[in-house]
Amino acid sequence: MASTKDSDSPEQQSTDATLNVVGVGNAIVDTLAHATDGQIAQLGLAKGAMTLIDADRAIELHDQMEAAIEVSGGSAANTLVGVASLGGRGAYIGKVRDDQLGEIFRHDIRAAGVDFRTTAATDSLPTARSLIFVTPDAQRTMQTYLGASVALGPDDIDASLIGSATFTYLEGYLFDKDPAKAAFVRAAEIAHRADRRVALTLSDPFCVDRHRASFLHLVSGHIDLLFANEAEITALFQVDDFDGAVAQIRGLCELAVITRGDQGSLIVSERGLIPIAPEPVDRVIDTTGAGDLYAAGFLFGLTNGYELETCGRIGSIAAAEVISHYGARPATSLADLVDQRFA
Amino acid sequence: MASTKDSDSPEQQSTDATLNVVGVGNAIVDTLAHATDGQIAQLGLAKGAMTLIDADRAIELHDQMEAAIEVSGGSAANTLVGVASLGGRGAYIGKVRDDQLGEIFRHDIRAAGVDFRTTAATDSLPTARSLIFVTPDAQRTMQTYLGASVALGPDDIDASLIGSATFTYLEGYLFDKDPAKAAFVRAAEIAHRADRRVALTLSDPFCVDRHRASFLHLVSGHIDLLFANEAEITALFQVDDFDGAVAQIRGLCELAVITRGDQGSLIVSERGLIPIAPEPVDRVIDTTGAGDLYAAGFLFGLTNGYELETCGRIGSIAAAEVISHYGARPATSLADLVDQRFA
Repeated sequence: MASTKDSDSPEQQSTDATLNVVGVGNAIVDTLAHATDGQIAQLGLAKGAMTLIDADRAIELHDQMEAAIEVSGGSAANTLVGVASLGGRGAYIGKVRDDQLGEIFRHDIRAAGVDFRTTAATDSLPTARSLIFVTPDAQRTMQTYLGASVALGPDDIDASLIGSATFTYLEGYLFDKDPAKAAFVRAAEIAHRADRRVALTLSDPFCVDRHRASFLHLVSGHIDLLFANEAEITALFQVDDFDGAVAQIRGLCELAVITRGDQGSLIVSERGLIPIAPEPVDRVIDTTGAGDLYAAGFLFGLTNGYELETCGRIGSIAAAEVISHYGARPATSLADLVDQRFA
Repeated sequence: MASTKDSDSPEQQSTDATLNVVGVGNAIVDTLAHATDGQIAQLGLAKGAMTLIDADRAIELHDQMEAAIEVSGGSAANTLVGVASLGGRGAYIGKVRDDQLGEIFRHDIRAAGVDFRTTAATDSLPTARSLIFVTPDAQRTMQTYLGASVALGPDDIDASLIGSATFTYLEGYLFDKDPAKAAFVRAAEIAHRADRRVALTLSDPFCVDRHRASFLHLVSGHIDLLFANEAEITALFQVDDFDGAVAQIRGLCELAVITRGDQGSLIVSERGLIPIAPEPVDRVIDTTGAGDLYAAGFLFGLTNGYELETCGRIGSIAAAEVISHYGARPATSLADLVDQRFA
């Protein structure tokens, strides 16, 4: 639990905050293409996971990919776009290069209504790209070349932005590189000094495996709200069963939300467990961004002072929208969608 | 009519050809976003048309655009991707820069099965982009920054490719810059010397207005098959009525196909007029690429020796597929679709 807080519970909004959420993450442009399970196997990819690749492997894999579309992505960036689409105020901190893909990333996140001011790198690697292979079962397999995104460092953390947001939202993927991890820790410290809250998503089970000790330390000391899916939370505690993981996270973190795919989600708070039913989806097309948009809905609700169950339901609505089409950002106004669902 | 041919009619295939079609055009990456009619008016755009813009205007308009997706485009390039999706063999000649967007263009067209070998420019403007605003009525308004595409010149015309294709397909948009126009004329000359056929699409009524005399000269002397829509063909002859335009094109060109949106299309041959019914579409989402894909289907049919009516029907099927989703290239196998429709 965060040490610098008073008796506020995380779901209480700091009324002087001008932003709902500021996100910190790897600024990435996604390259999305269809692939068969046979292709995934032939290319030697870990299906459903995010794997880091270097520039040479990126070229090699891109050569093997079907015709694609380019869409701005990045886990926390997708979440902030979701918050904005719900009608919330958000900002994003992440690093692109001053190249064509960086310009595309900047355009898209700003056009979505998210404040994005991090200066572009002028002499680093190119803007990050994630090659995303979407299989017929709607699963996505991500091969990420981090490029310029790892040039994000503590100096990029805008203290005034962090200080003005009810929640700072951090993606676990940042742990893969030391300067980004340092930026991450700095953001959490600034938030807590300003009496704000900090949320973390574990991002990926393999990312959890790579950085388990750091994550456990962070969650127990600095995180007010943890997002994870089943694979990530069981990986964090190295347990086989979901219930065992739930019991452990209850002792470690004031509030956690565990997403469970088509089984919905579970809110784990000090006051008990709240299961949230999944929103119905006619046809699941591409699960890319499901967790990102769930977090968007939950954070939007929480920072507007809604009940936890309502926060979970908004998260489910946002996630259901994004998996019903190709790409990891909403294709329609989430605010309108939520209005319809709650009407 | 082409002067160097023997008695072959255009629909007869040269059996020694190894490619169905080689296309020459402006190599462009599309930036697609939704817009309202109000935004189109406010930005001062000519709705439904293609307008050429310079780099400054491209930045200014991009800033005003909603969050977008990047998809490889270019009129003739879309057509060649369609030919490949139908199971045909095709190649493309067009100029990109050696930048990120150029690499995306190259990847996508090759991944679609089209032979693309034109060397990238290393010291020109960046790869061409078209900002495409899609309004709720599914119309597209294109603002094109030609960038590196205009660096295409006669030296880029690969005589062996042209010589090996039954049809060389040229887009009228190339007329907007002199070196590209010279490349265009060179391609037509090579094709006819090799006893191949040449097809042209007029591309856009404003493009026709800009280059009417050149187009008329070209069509009467070098073009075996002309593609146009109603607005383009009436612009070419400066007549108000469709029938008048049809009468004029009959006297000028051996074979012409005029697309008429939801009224289908009309094949105008020396032997008479053949109306083609439109393919039904559940919901028209984005008309970008409709003409490009009609041409793909027609050329695929023609170069496989099918009856003109069948060629028109394949064109209609391909066009119906591309307007049923966002983006100007097929989202499913056109060969499978045609098999289903003709089953």
